[in-house]
Amino acid sequence: MAIITLTTDFGLKDAYVASMKGVILGKNPDAKIVDISHEIYPQDIKQATLVLSAAYPYFPEGSIHVVVVDPGVGSDRRILCLKTKKAIFLAPDNGILAPIIEREKDAVLRVVQNERFFLKSVSATFHGRDLFAPVAAHLSTAQVFKDLGPLATGYERHGYPDPVLRQDVIEGEIIYIDRFGNLISNIEISHFGHRKVPPCDVTLGKHKIERSVTYYAEAKKDEIVALINSSGYVEIALRDGSARNKTRAKMGTKLTMHW
Amino acid sequence: MAIITLTTDFGLKDAYVASMKGVILGKNPDAKIVDISHEIYPQDIKQATLVLSAAYPYFPEGSIHVVVVDPGVGSDRRILCLKTKKAIFLAPDNGILAPIIEREKDAVLRVVQNERFFLKSVSATFHGRDLFAPVAAHLSTAQVFKDLGPLATGYERHGYPDPVLRQDVIEGEIIYIDRFGNLISNIEISHFGHRKVPPCDVTLGKHKIERSVTYYAEAKKDEIVALINSSGYVEIALRDGSARNKTRAKMGTKLTMHW
Amino acid sequence: MAIITLTTDFGLKDAYVASMKGVILGKNPDAKIVDISHEIYPQDIKQATLVLSAAYPYFPEGSIHVVVVDPGVGSDRRILCLKTKKAIFLAPDNGILAPIIEREKDAVLRVVQNERFFLKSVSATFHGRDLFAPVAAHLSTAQVFKDLGPLATGYERHGYPDPVLRQDVIEGEIIYIDRFGNLISNIEISHFGHRKVPPCDVTLGKHKIERSVTYYAEAKKDEIVALINSSGYVEIALRDGSARNKTRAKMGTKLTMHW
Repeated sequence: MAIITLTTDFGLKDAYVASMKGVILGKNPDAKIVDISHEIYPQDIKQATLVLSAAYPYFPEGSIHVVVVDPGVGSDRRILCLKTKKAIFLAPDNGILAPIIEREKDAVLRVVQNERFFLKSVSATFHGRDLFAPVAAHLSTAQVFKDLGPLATGYERHGYPDPVLRQDVIEGEIIYIDRFGNLISNIEISHFGHRKVPPCDVTLGKHKIERSVTYYAEAKKDEIVALINSSGYVEIALRDGSARNKTRAKMGTKLTMHW
Repeated sequence: MAIITLTTDFGLKDAYVASMKGVILGKNPDAKIVDISHEIYPQDIKQATLVLSAAYPYFPEGSIHVVVVDPGVGSDRRILCLKTKKAIFLAPDNGILAPIIEREKDAVLRVVQNERFFLKSVSATFHGRDLFAPVAAHLSTAQVFKDLGPLATGYERHGYPDPVLRQDVIEGEIIYIDRFGNLISNIEISHFGHRKVPPCDVTLGKHKIERSVTYYAEAKKDEIVALINSSGYVEIALRDGSARNKTRAKMGTKLTMHW
Repeated sequence: MAIITLTTDFGLKDAYVASMKGVILGKNPDAKIVDISHEIYPQDIKQATLVLSAAYPYFPEGSIHVVVVDPGVGSDRRILCLKTKKAIFLAPDNGILAPIIEREKDAVLRVVQNERFFLKSVSATFHGRDLFAPVAAHLSTAQVFKDLGPLATGYERHGYPDPVLRQDVIEGEIIYIDRFGNLISNIEISHFGHRKVPPCDVTLGKHKIERSVTYYAEAKKDEIVALINSSGYVEIALRDGSARNKTRAKMGTKLTMHW
């Protein structure tokens, strides 16, 4: 079995995603293609990293994760392929893979250059179909990782602001808002260190968050709460409603925890 | 073959659905996963029941239908597994399965408790990934229904208002609005009884519906019509347009049929 | 392997698409179903043709492409099945297939009439589930094309306006706007003939397009450019943004090229 996952900003209304799937199935009829998300906000590299990072640990060993959020398509930006013990990642060299490269031990990073693995005719505007899809299909059928191109000697980074850690304070910010209006911050449980897991005072912008809970249903009706979400991040939620709509917080709104 | 269908309110932009699929494929690489809908309005249990009920009769025998619309996640709400002659259903005990339990003969209902079938680490906020997905995968590979937990002695109900049936009148209401703006009522063809299938007088809120037809194209341009839809419900439709936009009807708007 | 692709205006929130998939998998458990798009604007036949035409050339030989954008469902509009050397197409006779019929050589066109391939009970409003899905499934398991019905002696056409070609001028218009706000015209590279590939003067409505480029990233920040897109059409794009939002162009806005 070969699982190929797709994460793009292509949306689902146009033919872009399906064209990639057609190319993949043409080269590997047995590929199992799984959509991670195609609703990445156009060209939002950071969102792509977050969504992929939340999903990929749950896929079986050997899965191939393709990310096409690619504002530099057609330019001389490189395409990277990262091979870890458990998975292969394929993405433009625009920062998407940086946090995964830094998190995964023993990973090998290559620059994808070997045109043998591309479609014969490569357009200037749709490398998802013409390069990423056929390369992923080849990776799913044979041990061609070494043949893709040379080892990479560096890679682009993009920076989510890391939270600021002080003695009794962590200052972070909202970096993702999900479908439910849950506000996800850049503060991870690993940042807590000696500080105890909440309860502590949590402030979102000008809102004092009244309470920290373990799960959504623990909150009272219309109560805004803080919790550790299923990916290990501090999240602000409203029971049966949208914390975004209620607090008007947005990407970048400050989240502060005081012990 | 094992088909596992998913019905959730997770939407498609976040990593939630893909994480469930990763877990399922990790336990059963041969599972065929089919999305029923992930656009259930957040926490809308009734909508989940309606959408699932419209789709599941068309799936082959042995399909496993997983529903995660779960405002009580993390609390002590139970998880139910319903086994009928044709299919298995897995959902929180919040009313989603009630109409199916009452419709399907010879069904067996169990409470899912056996942690052996869960992920090793269960989060408090994402049981879709940590409980529902692995349980469904196990069900798809072996006869483990009996091992999930004890027989259930009851279950939660939620109530769509039943239509009121009088001698020459049926009073119902709009309970679902589809993508096209078709207005679907809670009046089913089975409610007609001795009353003849339309023509009859149909009133939607303050609108008199001029005509009953058999199919959309039978309507004239800009004509609002009543028909029996493909699931057996009375529906109000506008040819080549949105009956919702034209009538401004919404969920709960009264629909009355006079003979 | 049998690939069945689906292109509909059903959206993803309702049970329509899943019901079709259930029917297909019930008749052919090995079918690989690929969504092309379900976000065709309701009843927009032209958009369906464009999206399908962009995707189908990338699918492997033998793929079966089902299109259900069907404002005439239930009426006496016919259902057509087109068999080309590479693929099979199934759609209502409402113009969707016309450009493909005219493009594909050696294609055979039949009217689908044989009720043996339909569901036993056919609703008046949902032929996607009751006719198209089971016919596609049968086509994917056996050589039944000839048995579907008689050869068609004609077919409906719908017309995108062809661009007007003059000595040094091509006058076209915008016929599709993709998720990114890229404006796609009806001018194809094949229309250029003796005229040289841009640079030339390009005018969109009242906007003079400053420059023609090969790929998006070649544009400067906030620059509107013209390019040949990955399907061979002249497209107006804005780097890292939406050309639609910036120019306020819409479907039908004129696009003129002067040499």
